[in-house]
Amino acid sequence: MSETGKKRFDVVFEGTGRSSGKMRNDISVEWPMMKESFELATDEGPFHGGDGTAPPPLALFTAALTGCLMTQIRAFAKRLRIELVSVEVHAKLHWKGEQEGSEPYVTAPVGFDLDVDIDSPASEAELKTLLNHAKKGCFIEQTLAQGLAVGHRLKIDGEWKEA
Amino acid sequence: MSETGKKRFDVVFEGTGRSSGKMRNDISVEWPMMKESFELATDEGPFHGGDGTAPPPLALFTAALTGCLMTQIRAFAKRLRIELVSVEVHAKLHWKGEQEGSEPYVTAPVGFDLDVDIDSPASEAELKTLLNHAKKGCFIEQTLAQGLAVGHRLKIDGEWKEA
Repeated sequence: MSETGKKRFDVVFEGTGRSSGKMRNDISVEWPMMKESFELATDEGPFHGGDGTAPPPLALFTAALTGCLMTQIRAFAKRLRIELVSVEVHAKLHWKGEQEGSEPYVTAPVGFDLDVDIDSPASEAELKTLLNHAKKGCFIEQTLAQGLAVGHRLKIDGEWKEA
Repeated sequence: MSETGKKRFDVVFEGTGRSSGKMRNDISVEWPMMKESFELATDEGPFHGGDGTAPPPLALFTAALTGCLMTQIRAFAKRLRIELVSVEVHAKLHWKGEQEGSEPYVTAPVGFDLDVDIDSPASEAELKTLLNHAKKGCFIEQTLAQGLAVGHRLKIDGEWKEA
């Protein structure tokens, strides 16, 4: 008996990353609720001290953001009974880094843009409604829109400490 | 001759995603400055109408965030002359979705936590300094911390319109 009639669900992903090659990380990702797991990896190219055995983290991020919106466009099209032939999205993600002398650099986002081309007999208004729902349903876009301070703990002499 | 002594650099990734299978997206990611490209894909499992041929977008996102921090820990350890034996990071990413009736759901982040275990002879203070620099150097964490409204355009009758 909810006052608002809203249903809530939770989505939790867990990852365990281990340094392997010079800059390579092997990351096991689990989706416990679905009992699914995925073996992923990141690396850097030789210019950044790696062996180029896997995509860099920002390539995975670019694919994640692009795929997230595309997935919700298709999932919600079904729900809204909008016919889709195909979807193509072009993403451009721009960050900057700033460095004082030889200090470690500090990064920031500059702008992320997604161009969405939906092949569909639907009207402009229907496509805008669909895109708007997809933005709000895309976990990654909503996280970016709201912002989030990631929590960290550091293991010191066998004990976890907030860091 | 800069007044601040700061150097700035830009990092741009571009992705082109195309719907392929029922829920699968094939996404070509390019890093033009490095002349590198990566073929990635997302899919959903059968429960969500897909064929399970690739990880879901949130699995790529979990690996991207985990790998980003790990990469900067190792890159900056070299710069700060901190010796590392290995790095292990456990990530837990928690989102929620809320739905009214059969409307498309609306998502939001609940909390992301990264537990960092660095095998190193360095002191607690050095490890904290290293982690702090890695957080500020991790493009993805900084994007989350600052928040960002993603820009969208929608192709309508062959013309790009803000959406």
